Amino acid sequence: MRLKELALHLGLSQTTVSRALNGYPEVNEETRRRVLDAARRHGYQPNANARRLATGRAGAIGIVLPTDRNMLLDPHYMEFQAGLGETLLADEIDIVLSPTRGSDEMATYRRMAVGSRVDGVVLSSPLIADDRVRLLTELGLPFVLHGRTESPVAHAWIDIDNEGAFRHATKHLIDLGHRRIGLVNGETRFTFARDREAGFRSALAARGIAVDERFVASGVMSDEIGYRITERFLCETPRPTALLVSSMMMSLGAFRAIRAAGLELGRDVSMIAHDDVFPFLNPDVMVPTMSTTRSSIRAAGKRVGELLKELVEGRAAETIHELWPVELVVRASTGPAPDG
Amino acid sequence: MRLKELALHLGLSQTTVSRALNGYPEVNEETRRRVLDAARRHGYQPNANARRLATGRAGAIGIVLPTDRNMLLDPHYMEFQAGLGETLLADEIDIVLSPTRGSDEMATYRRMAVGSRVDGVVLSSPLIADDRVRLLTELGLPFVLHGRTESPVAHAWIDIDNEGAFRHATKHLIDLGHRRIGLVNGETRFTFARDREAGFRSALAARGIAVDERFVASGVMSDEIGYRITERFLCETPRPTALLVSSMMMSLGAFRAIRAAGLELGRDVSMIAHDDVFPFLNPDVMVPTMSTTRSSIRAAGKRVGELLKELVEGRAAETIHELWPVELVVRASTGPAPDG
Repeated sequence: MRLKELALHLGLSQTTVSRALNGYPEVNEETRRRVLDAARRHGYQPNANARRLATGRAGAIGIVLPTDRNMLLDPHYMEFQAGLGETLLADEIDIVLSPTRGSDEMATYRRMAVGSRVDGVVLSSPLIADDRVRLLTELGLPFVLHGRTESPVAHAWIDIDNEGAFRHATKHLIDLGHRRIGLVNGETRFTFARDREAGFRSALAARGIAVDERFVASGVMSDEIGYRITERFLCETPRPTALLVSSMMMSLGAFRAIRAAGLELGRDVSMIAHDDVFPFLNPDVMVPTMSTTRSSIRAAGKRVGELLKELVEGRAAETIHELWPVELVVRASTGPAPDG
Repeated sequence: MRLKELALHLGLSQTTVSRALNGYPEVNEETRRRVLDAARRHGYQPNANARRLATGRAGAIGIVLPTDRNMLLDPHYMEFQAGLGETLLADEIDIVLSPTRGSDEMATYRRMAVGSRVDGVVLSSPLIADDRVRLLTELGLPFVLHGRTESPVAHAWIDIDNEGAFRHATKHLIDLGHRRIGLVNGETRFTFARDREAGFRSALAARGIAVDERFVASGVMSDEIGYRITERFLCETPRPTALLVSSMMMSLGAFRAIRAAGLELGRDVSMIAHDDVFPFLNPDVMVPTMSTTRSSIRAAGKRVGELLKELVEGRAAETIHELWPVELVVRASTGPAPDG
């Protein structure tokens, strides 16, 4: 049924029907209800705004962004948001980016829940102990967590196997003869970084290799921090012969530090970096090509959007637990341990 | 004055004052008004949510995203949004990303205006003829246009001097002896691409050089389209000796096509690309380094956010016209025209 037929059927003008479907204030409540009912009965496909009125939903999902950490400048978050948008925008669901100062975070979520401004929220970058899960559960605001946190409350989450990825990568370096392996990690207050460190340590422990704590470091996943940490590692005697790096951004800095020390990547120092699959940072076209643990953060964002829609439509949160495996892609930045 | 003192002064509990400031429904309207008045009188700095209630503003700005063109996957848009977020998030202003199908675009803006869901909107990527300016002016919804469009209605805009940038770059190539110069442009329905083409043509005309229309092409500003257009240009006899390219993304593809044809960038073919300053695509570290016309799109986003705030606070739209000059940065991808 088309708009014209729907209007004819109701004995209303097309303009009135269209206005009713789009929530214009000129149309009174009774007429709007009549139009929406008829549209539903006759299978008329109204646009997102009309669906919103019909279902009583906000047609929006919320993301709270801490102002002390501009996530819109973080390429990891932006790739995630691109994937999320791919799902939500296709379904004409708004995304509300809501900034908050650290101390107001609970009030911001509460405002979202109380005002019915959003139907659900996405939680990113969970801390090992993260209060947001308990808070949102109490508020009854549906959410999907991207990552994991320690919480007694059942909730929806999707994560990649960070521990398995770094265990696998470390084991590969050990198999190549490396014994002094450094870890250039993300901030360890986040679960993903803790999990990667656990994978690194368990692979070394499994082969009876003691961890040299001078070669374990973490920080913001930027080019600059990657450079600084690696520069420091390479000043030690003997220096590490291989590095595990938590992001491609950090690996760019690590690579610069290796070159600045007059060393050759893939011969003097091996490196495996975690690749979130950024469109303009392709490990295949780097020279030398970069070995990686690979999982598309954009694909994760897309899936979070799908799961959040299912959750809002009634799927039980405790049935949503997805742990994605991570590939190890061996390229030219890894080679046998140098002699000595 | 702090929350404790404000509560004492009002004879209310701190919890009630805090709830009133944050719009909790448990607090009745009269109490809320009393609290907000006292907070204002005594210079208490409430958080963004309380300010929102006090000013009657939504505390949000809107961006309508066409679903047929996923702008969240477009690095140019994402850099712009990062800059915008830098301003707005610091001021605790929400950003509402609102998807729309092409035919519903007017309804989406109307919904934003009528529902008072946002205080203003940002318009990106204007077409040469863009209906949005007239529509938003009629709706009375404040907006800042990033770019320019032909419109009789006075409105706020900020743009870079695209015509001047490409005129300057073309003139530089002519000065190096190039006569067969190709243009790898963005989609010409957008004003920025039309302006760049105008600059290119006017520089050639000023020196009496006829434009070879086989060497003028445009498309989506991606690596892939850059490759395809350049590949086609290089099949012509004689081929162009220099290229102007509308984005760094396209220049990556153009560079691959030059190499694939067995040619050397900066010797057989010169190139100047427009650089929006992407954090992980630095023309200084490319081999050879890339000559560019440079203007940070993130800085533009930041400025749009500032201007939109001023507009919402009452600044007249017709006083907001900013045209930013663009630098020409000469690096190793440009050299003298080869003989023949």
